[in-house]
Amino acid sequence: MLSLDRIYHASYVLKGVARKTDLIAAPNMVPGVDLHLKTENLQVTGSFKLRGAYYKINQLSPEELSHGIVACSAGNHAQGVALAATRLGVHSVVCMPDAAPLMKVENTRRLGAEVRLVKGTYDEAHDEAVRLVEETGATFIHPYDDEDVIAGQGTIGLEILDQLDDVDAVVVPVGGGGLISGVALAIKSLRPNCKVYGVQASGAASMANAFRDDKWEALEDVSTFADGIAVKNPGETTFKMVERYVDDVVTVSDDEIAAAILALMEKQKLVAEGAGAAPVAAVMFNKLPVQGKRVVCVVSGGNIDVNILSRVINRGLSMSGRKVTLSIRLTDKPGQLEQVSRLIAEEGANVVAVDYDQTDPNLPISSCILRIGMETKDQAQIDAIRDRMVQEGFSLVE
Amino acid sequence: MLSLDRIYHASYVLKGVARKTDLIAAPNMVPGVDLHLKTENLQVTGSFKLRGAYYKINQLSPEELSHGIVACSAGNHAQGVALAATRLGVHSVVCMPDAAPLMKVENTRRLGAEVRLVKGTYDEAHDEAVRLVEETGATFIHPYDDEDVIAGQGTIGLEILDQLDDVDAVVVPVGGGGLISGVALAIKSLRPNCKVYGVQASGAASMANAFRDDKWEALEDVSTFADGIAVKNPGETTFKMVERYVDDVVTVSDDEIAAAILALMEKQKLVAEGAGAAPVAAVMFNKLPVQGKRVVCVVSGGNIDVNILSRVINRGLSMSGRKVTLSIRLTDKPGQLEQVSRLIAEEGANVVAVDYDQTDPNLPISSCILRIGMETKDQAQIDAIRDRMVQEGFSLVE
Repeated sequence: MLSLDRIYHASYVLKGVARKTDLIAAPNMVPGVDLHLKTENLQVTGSFKLRGAYYKINQLSPEELSHGIVACSAGNHAQGVALAATRLGVHSVVCMPDAAPLMKVENTRRLGAEVRLVKGTYDEAHDEAVRLVEETGATFIHPYDDEDVIAGQGTIGLEILDQLDDVDAVVVPVGGGGLISGVALAIKSLRPNCKVYGVQASGAASMANAFRDDKWEALEDVSTFADGIAVKNPGETTFKMVERYVDDVVTVSDDEIAAAILALMEKQKLVAEGAGAAPVAAVMFNKLPVQGKRVVCVVSGGNIDVNILSRVINRGLSMSGRKVTLSIRLTDKPGQLEQVSRLIAEEGANVVAVDYDQTDPNLPISSCILRIGMETKDQAQIDAIRDRMVQEGFSLVE
Repeated sequence: MLSLDRIYHASYVLKGVARKTDLIAAPNMVPGVDLHLKTENLQVTGSFKLRGAYYKINQLSPEELSHGIVACSAGNHAQGVALAATRLGVHSVVCMPDAAPLMKVENTRRLGAEVRLVKGTYDEAHDEAVRLVEETGATFIHPYDDEDVIAGQGTIGLEILDQLDDVDAVVVPVGGGGLISGVALAIKSLRPNCKVYGVQASGAASMANAFRDDKWEALEDVSTFADGIAVKNPGETTFKMVERYVDDVVTVSDDEIAAAILALMEKQKLVAEGAGAAPVAAVMFNKLPVQGKRVVCVVSGGNIDVNILSRVINRGLSMSGRKVTLSIRLTDKPGQLEQVSRLIAEEGANVVAVDYDQTDPNLPISSCILRIGMETKDQAQIDAIRDRMVQEGFSLVE
């Protein structure tokens, strides 16, 4: 089985290739928790995946390397493998589902891989990768269920212990389990009393289920916007390592992950993808017994589509009372918009959208609905505006 | 005049207070430029301001400290002063305009300052601060025109030279000029051939104008969303230092700054405020002769309101072809929405908003306008969708 010395070796091999990403104190994220962030979102390629991919490929024999390497991924693993292979002068083919975000496809190409777009989902892309391996004798680089890949990811554990004293707990996102297996091995070998917790999206809780049930199991389907941890099958090696080294595996909802992404942006100025924010979500929403503790959350990556990021921000703004749309029933008489506008201005909110609707069949024919979108300071300001409207005789529609 | 040894002293004083923020390579931001980012957005309080404020307050005599300190700011300086004073055990009063974002007010309080909200703009808050100083004998901490403040900011220059060899140019945002004065003094003292460039928002080009005209001058008005550099009056000390040590001061538009903010988020996973992104904007949009050079951009801060950030993302998405709203003239007959939807789905775009408008008086009475909002991959995909629509007989409205 994998031992600590292989992680030390990976750490040596990765010198000058992977960044020793900063460990940043985040004292104001969660009251009562001495929180620190291991910023693998700032890693080259935007995620930790480079570490495992590079170490794995570096360990192949010249004979193996001569046949090239093949990988399958819609995301971070693709970029990690592409850059690792290029840095090591090896030809790489990455099979990606053709619906993969254009930016990820382009990044993988730019990093030097030959991208093969495969019609269908991840599973079809995987089949194509397997076919290629059989046809060409290339080596398949598994995204997580591989001891060398795990050893590469484990270097993060060594860095954490080097960068911070007296760590009580390390919280790690879990998809297939490669990252947490390596990190947990490193942490438990050197600091056995430090807890290691895994976090999954509740819509993709394969490892959490397996951990709870004490036997390997897979999911039929996964559903989460955190694509980096949307994995149906825990690894077999990684499941054994999680059973042995990890203290607990908990889950967070997509809404909790979104709130954590927003908090990381606002308070820490960091862009995290869903997987990367999941550990922070687990601490923010009290899924783990870490009050009063010194905790490191591994922010595993930052490769989030900006369209999704934009939606996360808007959701978060609504949830925290900084954006609201109020619907007001108006009777058609002059001056009403002026009155509403003045009221809002006096309360200090900022109108960003106005919409009149006269077509609702449930309304008296002389009435209409005014929908007014505002940027607000907080829920208290929204309540004040609502109260003023009611006082001035307007009828709010829910 | 300020000399290098004071910056070294500030560096010593700031140990354990300010973070030595990471210098991150950003090779893919601008083709042909070996770009690096000094990440002061990841500094404690979210900006570099802590450095100057702490060093300044640290240098006051016990007699001066006993009367407390006063500052005036709507933003980063407020938080820097608040934390610096608290760390040094001194009472601080920060005058802020009452329209300042709630989050900045709260952060300043949380960091230990007494916040005095003053009705009106920055100028009124400043008058109140001056009045308080006269009344109480407190020391006013100027945001930029002060040698100790400048020395504190200059520690960033020392760190850059320590963190990266062979730097050809350092690019720094300029508001009042405190940051660039300190950084330029440090850089030019130790590495005279390294260029130092300043960047301002074109709507607040006070120092750029003064530099060009070779005499101190102020602006009547400023207009930019980059509030950290929206400054009417260059400092007198800082203007002299900029004249002496800085190679050029250029300007960027708000749209260019917005594009840089988006690029920093997408490619570097960093949240920057307008001022913090301005140097990157200057390099991205070729305002500076740095092709083929090794360049450090100082990302001075990350305190941007998420409402504004959300708008920046949306603007950037539209500009880069990843979000579009098409307006189509439909004649009222069944099946048209189905046809349009199918066409869009076949081209691989994602519908996010649909709106029918039958009220436009310019339309024949049997027509309506369908507005359809989509998330798209790029401009080419938008063009393909437009072409298909025209081919299938739809009439697009500009």
